[in-house]
Amino acid sequence: MADIKPVQNSIKAEMEYFEDKFSQLMKSQVFLLDSVMRYIVKRKGKQLRPMFVLLSAKACGPIGEPTYRGAALIELLHTATLVHDDVVDDANYRRGFFSINALWKNKIAVLVGDYLLSRGLLLAVDHGDFELLRLVSRAVREMSEGELLQIEKARRLDITEEVYFEIIKQKTASLIASCCAVGAASAGASAETIDKARLFGEQAGMAFQMKDDLFDYGEEEIGKPRGIDIKEKKMTLPLIYALQQADWLEKREIISIVKSNQPSKKQVQKVISFVSEKGGISYTQEVMKHYVESAKQTLATFADNESFQALSTLVDYTIERNR
Amino acid sequence: MADIKPVQNSIKAEMEYFEDKFSQLMKSQVFLLDSVMRYIVKRKGKQLRPMFVLLSAKACGPIGEPTYRGAALIELLHTATLVHDDVVDDANYRRGFFSINALWKNKIAVLVGDYLLSRGLLLAVDHGDFELLRLVSRAVREMSEGELLQIEKARRLDITEEVYFEIIKQKTASLIASCCAVGAASAGASAETIDKARLFGEQAGMAFQMKDDLFDYGEEEIGKPRGIDIKEKKMTLPLIYALQQADWLEKREIISIVKSNQPSKKQVQKVISFVSEKGGISYTQEVMKHYVESAKQTLATFADNESFQALSTLVDYTIERNR
Repeated sequence: MADIKPVQNSIKAEMEYFEDKFSQLMKSQVFLLDSVMRYIVKRKGKQLRPMFVLLSAKACGPIGEPTYRGAALIELLHTATLVHDDVVDDANYRRGFFSINALWKNKIAVLVGDYLLSRGLLLAVDHGDFELLRLVSRAVREMSEGELLQIEKARRLDITEEVYFEIIKQKTASLIASCCAVGAASAGASAETIDKARLFGEQAGMAFQMKDDLFDYGEEEIGKPRGIDIKEKKMTLPLIYALQQADWLEKREIISIVKSNQPSKKQVQKVISFVSEKGGISYTQEVMKHYVESAKQTLATFADNESFQALSTLVDYTIERNR
Repeated sequence: MADIKPVQNSIKAEMEYFEDKFSQLMKSQVFLLDSVMRYIVKRKGKQLRPMFVLLSAKACGPIGEPTYRGAALIELLHTATLVHDDVVDDANYRRGFFSINALWKNKIAVLVGDYLLSRGLLLAVDHGDFELLRLVSRAVREMSEGELLQIEKARRLDITEEVYFEIIKQKTASLIASCCAVGAASAGASAETIDKARLFGEQAGMAFQMKDDLFDYGEEEIGKPRGIDIKEKKMTLPLIYALQQADWLEKREIISIVKSNQPSKKQVQKVISFVSEKGGISYTQEVMKHYVESAKQTLATFADNESFQALSTLVDYTIERNR
């Protein structure tokens, strides 16, 4: 198990400075908005994205104010998409807390998401960080396009691996790619190094999403609930691969469960067992590890030894975490 | 009645060029997204905002590609907020067409709104239009903050005129102010002229929103449905003023209707009559005309005779329209 503690300690002061800056940014004169913002700050997550920004900056030069602004911009965008996602999925919980839509209704959640997006935009515009905007704005587009591509394609039961990779590249990897590119750029890296950092982030982000998709098939004993993707008819790599290995009869049975509107607990378990038996879990783990290896190879082309260690550990952590 | 036709004819070619550019921008590789985009282009509205951009540019210099990009960016943002507003208000119709959430569900509508926002952002970033971004990004923030301020305050029955003006300045006038500032800037205007154009747009935008709020009290015989704001407990100037003029007993009766969860048709009619009798309509019309006059005075400080005529007519139209 990758020990993330030493990495966290190595940028403890920087992360604290970032979090302080982020809280300041979230203040608002509008009382209602300020209440929501304080709640969001309180229930913060693992902060992986700011860590990718800070560590990528460190790999390329000194961390400075532009680095912190980059991390804040990305965290604002990420938070905005989470708030909107919970509306979209009608989710009542996020990270063990109530979601914004659960506490304040959809109306407010949609507007708060828009506010967070614009807050990030303004932060960059006010400081003339146009390179930062350029690096990030493509990710914003790709994320919403990726989610829509997923809605369109991932419920088609004949989805191919290629389409799956395209979806996770857009909806998840593009933002982590931007984290690393922004970090590198903020520390004065060359265009070539920024491109390498982006590729590293993209590869790490692909692995990150595969790990998330594996949770749904109960790879780990503890942690996230299982079978959610199945109930939502969302086809991810473990199931896509397993179906390829199945004969016509098995395929028909599994597909009829996934297609049904409210599969029973037993039926969901049936799909989970099927995926495991057909090697869907181990295949996805293999591909995920392949992306991690590629990420490390890319990382080695621009990071010194210390930064290589820190970012490698962060990548290992993203695929070994149990939540 | 202001005749808008000659104004429309004076920029017919430019508007057609803009609309063509806008349709191109709305294309997407993702089939689902492309379908939604084609629907949005088809049900386009009065296009007042692009007209404000183009005419403000014309008042300050030649219309060029940056002008069209500015108009497109603003129309993208405006469309994004409309798509989100319909989710927020659970509205099934917009401009006589079904809303996006009615046809494709909330999930897709939220994502499409985000996509439109990012599409606008990318358009400006890709062309290095950072001045444009600077002028527009504040409006994006103010719009969401204004809507949230409205949710927080406009349902309090003791809302003051000052708070009402603050809300409509943020949620409506700020975007029309940006239209005019962006138009002026795109035609190479000085910082001083850009500021004047912004002020002109803000004053025109205030009048525009008051006209919208008047519709709810049935100032016109035809046109928009009445009583919606009352049912949503949204306090606007006609009612705020009327309540100030009422005695304690009348106030109590009207407030109990507005507070009730499902006021009857007769009760809503009661509030509408009350507002009219207490002079809420004529007071709001007076204030609206005052803003129109101020807008024209501001306009005269930077526009030549021809542009003055065109933009004056556009402002007159915004307060005389019947939909």
